[in-house]
Amino acid sequence: MTVYKDDSVMLHTDLYQINMGETYWEDGIHNKKSVFEVFFRKLPFGNGYAVFAGLERIINYIESFRFSESDITYLREEVGFKEDYLDFLKELRFTGNIRSMVEGELVFQNEPILRIEAPLIEAQLVETAILNIVNYQTLIATKASRIKHVVGDQVAMEFGTRRAQEMDAAIWGTRAAYIGGFQATSNVRAGKKFGIPVAGTHAHSMVQAYKDEYVAFHKYARRHKDCVFLVDTYDTLKSGVPNAIKVAKELGDKINFRAIRLDSGDLTYLSKKARQLLDEAGFVDTKIVASNDLDEDTIMHLKSQGAQIDMWGVGTKLITAYDQPALGAVYKLVSIEGENGEMVDTIKISANPEKVSTPGLKRVYRIINKLNGKSEGDYITLEGEDPQSEERLKMFHPVHTFISKFVTNFEAKELHQDIYKSGELVYQTPNLQTIQQYAEDNLGLLWDEYKRTRNPEEYPVDLSEKCWENKARQINEVRKKVSSKLNQA
Amino acid sequence: MTVYKDDSVMLHTDLYQINMGETYWEDGIHNKKSVFEVFFRKLPFGNGYAVFAGLERIINYIESFRFSESDITYLREEVGFKEDYLDFLKELRFTGNIRSMVEGELVFQNEPILRIEAPLIEAQLVETAILNIVNYQTLIATKASRIKHVVGDQVAMEFGTRRAQEMDAAIWGTRAAYIGGFQATSNVRAGKKFGIPVAGTHAHSMVQAYKDEYVAFHKYARRHKDCVFLVDTYDTLKSGVPNAIKVAKELGDKINFRAIRLDSGDLTYLSKKARQLLDEAGFVDTKIVASNDLDEDTIMHLKSQGAQIDMWGVGTKLITAYDQPALGAVYKLVSIEGENGEMVDTIKISANPEKVSTPGLKRVYRIINKLNGKSEGDYITLEGEDPQSEERLKMFHPVHTFISKFVTNFEAKELHQDIYKSGELVYQTPNLQTIQQYAEDNLGLLWDEYKRTRNPEEYPVDLSEKCWENKARQINEVRKKVSSKLNQA
Repeated sequence: MTVYKDDSVMLHTDLYQINMGETYWEDGIHNKKSVFEVFFRKLPFGNGYAVFAGLERIINYIESFRFSESDITYLREEVGFKEDYLDFLKELRFTGNIRSMVEGELVFQNEPILRIEAPLIEAQLVETAILNIVNYQTLIATKASRIKHVVGDQVAMEFGTRRAQEMDAAIWGTRAAYIGGFQATSNVRAGKKFGIPVAGTHAHSMVQAYKDEYVAFHKYARRHKDCVFLVDTYDTLKSGVPNAIKVAKELGDKINFRAIRLDSGDLTYLSKKARQLLDEAGFVDTKIVASNDLDEDTIMHLKSQGAQIDMWGVGTKLITAYDQPALGAVYKLVSIEGENGEMVDTIKISANPEKVSTPGLKRVYRIINKLNGKSEGDYITLEGEDPQSEERLKMFHPVHTFISKFVTNFEAKELHQDIYKSGELVYQTPNLQTIQQYAEDNLGLLWDEYKRTRNPEEYPVDLSEKCWENKARQINEVRKKVSSKLNQA
Repeated sequence: MTVYKDDSVMLHTDLYQINMGETYWEDGIHNKKSVFEVFFRKLPFGNGYAVFAGLERIINYIESFRFSESDITYLREEVGFKEDYLDFLKELRFTGNIRSMVEGELVFQNEPILRIEAPLIEAQLVETAILNIVNYQTLIATKASRIKHVVGDQVAMEFGTRRAQEMDAAIWGTRAAYIGGFQATSNVRAGKKFGIPVAGTHAHSMVQAYKDEYVAFHKYARRHKDCVFLVDTYDTLKSGVPNAIKVAKELGDKINFRAIRLDSGDLTYLSKKARQLLDEAGFVDTKIVASNDLDEDTIMHLKSQGAQIDMWGVGTKLITAYDQPALGAVYKLVSIEGENGEMVDTIKISANPEKVSTPGLKRVYRIINKLNGKSEGDYITLEGEDPQSEERLKMFHPVHTFISKFVTNFEAKELHQDIYKSGELVYQTPNLQTIQQYAEDNLGLLWDEYKRTRNPEEYPVDLSEKCWENKARQINEVRKKVSSKLNQA
């Protein structure tokens, strides 16, 4: 590995972005205004919604948009780019606009999460990193929200660093988990960076180091007034819980016997028996923490069997999004400057109908019913439409158009905010607690039917009539073009 | 987010490590010599072997083992550690020994990959980061090796950055994929850092930007002599391939028409038809690159149907290890200094028999049959045993002990090397090409039966008789202790 003093994230992109940039630059179209949108086609985990996260990291990335000297040297000497293009890249800065949903926003299939309006080459170069960030952080915030939904008013803690997919995932995944509703983490660096409460007591190795559980608990309690004892190093019910109780009784007021932690075995059985032992000893306020390959399904099953667990430590299954470790957000060109400076919409056709992109500059509105405060669905318009001005809004399914409804007495809440204007950052990230609260408040807009963790009802994401017609027109134009070329050939 | 100028990875650990450290320090046992081992219990993906990766990153981590000023401030002000302990932490450096397998080594269940011998508090503090690194990188190197096994002599390229679990995963995952046998990556930063060849041409958006495939290919070819055209923006067979051929014919010797790339649709059908079109046009040397949610299973099925694909771009399924996104390597205390300076072995018992750790300082040997050059299995001994000195080695299954064999005329190759001695780095990481070659050579030691990607034969990982007896003795001692305590209670 070569270590560079001027290491940058500008090369954290796919080679083809820099290649395409060269073609645009050579052809003199690199500064054409272009609009790209980030969206995913399918909600992860079969969930009824996703929770957007990643914007802060995207801002960090855009703020450092600048090829370093060693980047240029590498591109010249190892990849073979020529000097004239490299001279241009050296001076390149991000000068575009970014509009985006804010972190904690609920987001659904086929709606633009971010919209990047920038000179073509700039918009292309930032694609890979933006997707890398949005895909992972949104995935984890969504997974966390599912788990927190099942955990309910109890405490959910992130314990996954050792199984995370390298260091950034541990750190940014923890932040995303907090946005999704988790209350604490074991990762101290994430605590330091983001102000997330840190949690943790001791490991099996401490009991092993003292070779005696009773001695180990005693030693631990000398310095730590708040005690959580891990009770399954040798035998939970025969050794761990009795030793914890013995130490707590001996030390009395000198410690707060906060909890015991179970990390193996049958958590329903052990928690019920442990609860009984604690209660009999008078420790009715001492909580039970559980961990060991937990996820929303296992937690729901444990709860349904009456497990006496108060706090949940979730590791692997959360931090890797184990049952679906990738979100498929994509970055599609929807409009580009034409010959005479006008914007021309573009489309990507596919044999797979759901992969056809929706052309044009768009806005996303959440249509909130003023009578009950619940959302009727999301409504995507072309730039310049104003759904709020309509008295009676027609919402129809973008594929099965016969599924439709009229909504009156609604608030059309626009979901995008300006983040960058002409390359200037115009948005201030709220603190993490505010973001978490925002996500929680947003969940209040959804009917419970959308929040079920298994087979939820599908939340409507509809196109305005203008937006739908524009798409249909583009599809026809491309099909005509392809078949006329065929006839010529 | 708070940005620290002295950001460090020392806090990239679980809080309980720092908590336990405090107990050890308060009790004066923090400098007791301790031995921890890293191992996993189950091979990932049902594979017959794993490929170890992560050592270079571990070395980077250990080299920066030092709490920064802001780390200490955070621990004081936000977590509440006291000044005396913090004064101690400030001065803490890594002073231990690390013995480890080298990257590219084949590794199996229940054998120590790394062995950390260090003062108790140091060994404890490094646990989380080491597991974070080993678990991810070994997982990806193994997944890559599976895929490369199916790809065979053809070219395998890593294309996963946009779906990776944040930036570090993209970068270090790419490196691990290279160790596992991949030949190129699309991630330019990984190319720069590690010297991995970078690959990539253009995206659908370039065709969209020109609104005409023929024009787009022409423009691309102006600057890029080596051309790979992505042919599925509108219609692969009706538009993409004919346009690529047309441009290549027109430009003749001015370009090398290296390949076309298919990124959607039925890859078997399209590749056969595209091959036919290319051949008919005289482009018999032009290759076909395929991508789109590929993994070892899909590639095997495409090949078995005679798909005409020469190069494989693998993204999501590789970089996230989609079918099993976490490896469960653990870090267990196997021995610790006793009252009088002697080393005392320790064990972690579990109701789950395969979770019982194997106590004692150990070495791992690969037993290579000199007659055929193939491995007979791995053989774990206690420190100080010398299997090479035995004429006839008894190898038996550590659980089902009746499964046994005698091996003669063998080479016992020790798998650990010294990495750190008394805190000093004594190992020089080879370059990445050497590591990749080492992994490939090692695969030559295995019979094909261990390399099948579905239901491979189980590779023997055996304990020496001494090692096995030591474990049995420890289990009995702990069980006696637990039941005698119960009788007292």
